[in-house]
Amino acid sequence: MKAGFVQTSPRFGDIRWNVDDAVERIRALCGSTGATLVALPELFSTGYQFKSAKEALDLAEDASAGYAAKRLGEAAKELGVFIVAGFAEKSGRKVYNSAVLIGPKGRVGTYRKAHLFSNEKKIFSPGDTPFEVYKAGRARVGMMICFDWLFPEAARTLALKGADIICHPSNLVLPYCPAAMITRSLENRVYAVTANRVGAEERISGKRLKFIGTSQIIAPDGKVIARAGRVRPCAHAADFDLKAARDKRITPVNDIFKDRRTGFYEL
Amino acid sequence: MKAGFVQTSPRFGDIRWNVDDAVERIRALCGSTGATLVALPELFSTGYQFKSAKEALDLAEDASAGYAAKRLGEAAKELGVFIVAGFAEKSGRKVYNSAVLIGPKGRVGTYRKAHLFSNEKKIFSPGDTPFEVYKAGRARVGMMICFDWLFPEAARTLALKGADIICHPSNLVLPYCPAAMITRSLENRVYAVTANRVGAEERISGKRLKFIGTSQIIAPDGKVIARAGRVRPCAHAADFDLKAARDKRITPVNDIFKDRRTGFYEL
Repeated sequence: MKAGFVQTSPRFGDIRWNVDDAVERIRALCGSTGATLVALPELFSTGYQFKSAKEALDLAEDASAGYAAKRLGEAAKELGVFIVAGFAEKSGRKVYNSAVLIGPKGRVGTYRKAHLFSNEKKIFSPGDTPFEVYKAGRARVGMMICFDWLFPEAARTLALKGADIICHPSNLVLPYCPAAMITRSLENRVYAVTANRVGAEERISGKRLKFIGTSQIIAPDGKVIARAGRVRPCAHAADFDLKAARDKRITPVNDIFKDRRTGFYEL
Repeated sequence: MKAGFVQTSPRFGDIRWNVDDAVERIRALCGSTGATLVALPELFSTGYQFKSAKEALDLAEDASAGYAAKRLGEAAKELGVFIVAGFAEKSGRKVYNSAVLIGPKGRVGTYRKAHLFSNEKKIFSPGDTPFEVYKAGRARVGMMICFDWLFPEAARTLALKGADIICHPSNLVLPYCPAAMITRSLENRVYAVTANRVGAEERISGKRLKFIGTSQIIAPDGKVIARAGRVRPCAHAADFDLKAARDKRITPVNDIFKDRRTGFYEL
C-alpha cells in the first residue's frame, strides 16, 4: 500500500480555506501516487496559537458534524482513502486537541492528545481517549499528536496494540522530533508518518512560533523514506510494506517484542 | 562534577593488557580533567566475539575477585573516582554480560545485561538484576549495556528510579544508537554516557564485526556534549550539572514525569 503526508501552511482561523486547501492537496497526492492513507498536521483546520480557551471553543468543531469532518469525509469517500487529521474538537464545553481517522465509510476513530505542550494546557482539555489502533484497509493505524513523541510510552503502546503505522499530526517548533521519530520507528519496528506544518504565527505578542516543516515517513528499520523541507507546503507518499512492520525480528534470534523484559520495567 | 568515557580497542582474550590499558587511560583522563566518574565499554577486559559459551566461561571473571575488578578497584581508590565497566561476569557456571560500578570504597553495584543481542544469547545468561540506581558521590548513576538502548523501558526505568546519569558500556556495530541515545536523554532528561570501543574482530570466520566508536556524552536537553571518532581509542570528560538532570521541566508547565499519562500506557 501507499501512504503519505500533506504538509500545509494554515491561515489562522480560516477553517474553510484550510480545509479546502488540504482536500485539494490530498486529492492531488492520491491522484498522482495512489496513496490510500494520508496524514495532515495537528490543528490543520484552525491554526495553532489560540489566544484563549474561549477562542478555541469558538473555532472548534464536532468530530463528525464540523466542516472539516464533513469535507474530509466526502474526500475520503470520493477518493476511496483514509485520512488522519489533527483538529480542535468541540465536545460540549470542552475542547480537545484531537486527531481523527476518516475512511470511505466515515469516521473510524478519534484520539484526543494525551500530553499537552506548554500553553495548550490553558486551551485544551487533556485527552481522555486511550491509545487505540484502527483498521484502515489492510493497515492497522495508530494516532499520536506532536508532543506525544517525547513520551516513549505513546508509540510503544500503539505498537504493542498492533499498529503498523503511527500517524503523527504535528505542529513542531523545536528541532528534536524528526530524529526522535527515527528512534520511535526503530524501537517499535513500525512506520511513522509525521505530518507537520510550515509558516509562523505570532497572535500573542512576543510569542512568535515558527513551525519547522520536516514532515517525514520513517520505515520500521529506521530509514528516512521521505522528508519534507522546512518552508513550503508539500506532499509525499511512499510504498509501505506492512509485513515489515509486523515482523519484529531484527536478527534471527531477536524479536524486539518477545525480548522485552517487562518484569524489570517500571511504569 | 566531571564525568566521561574511555573509548578502548581491546585485544581479544588479553585481560591483563586490556585492563592495564584502560586503567592507564582512566588515570590520564582523571588526572587531566578532574573527572570523578568514568565509563568503559562493554566487555572491555575480554573483547566481544566469543566462539562459544565455554570460551566465555574460561575468560569470565568474578565481579569482585577478578583481575579487572581488582585493578579497577585499586584505581578507583587511588584516584578517588567511580568507574563503570562492562565485563564478562562469572557466577558459578553462568556467564553474564555485566557492568559494574566501582568506587573508592569498592564495588557499589553490578548490572547484568537484560537484553542480549544476536549471538550473545548463545554465550551469556540473560540478566537477572533489576535496573538499579546507585550513588556515585553526589551523582545517582544507572547502568545499561549496549543493545538495552533499543528498549525505551531500560533508560526510562533508570530515570524513574532517580538516575542523573546513565552509563552505557557498549560494543556497537550498527549505526543507530548514537542518535537514539539523544532521544533517551531528551525523553528522560538525564545525562547519558555511551562508552563504546573501536577496532574489529573476526574470530568466527565470515562474521567480521567492526565497532563504530562514537562514544558520547549527551546532556539532559539532548545536546551532544562530546562525541568520539570512529577509529581511535580516546577519552573525554565534561562538566555535569546534576540539577539539570533532576529538573524534569522542559517548559514552565511541562514536567515530563508529572505529565506522564500512565493510565493510558501499556507495559
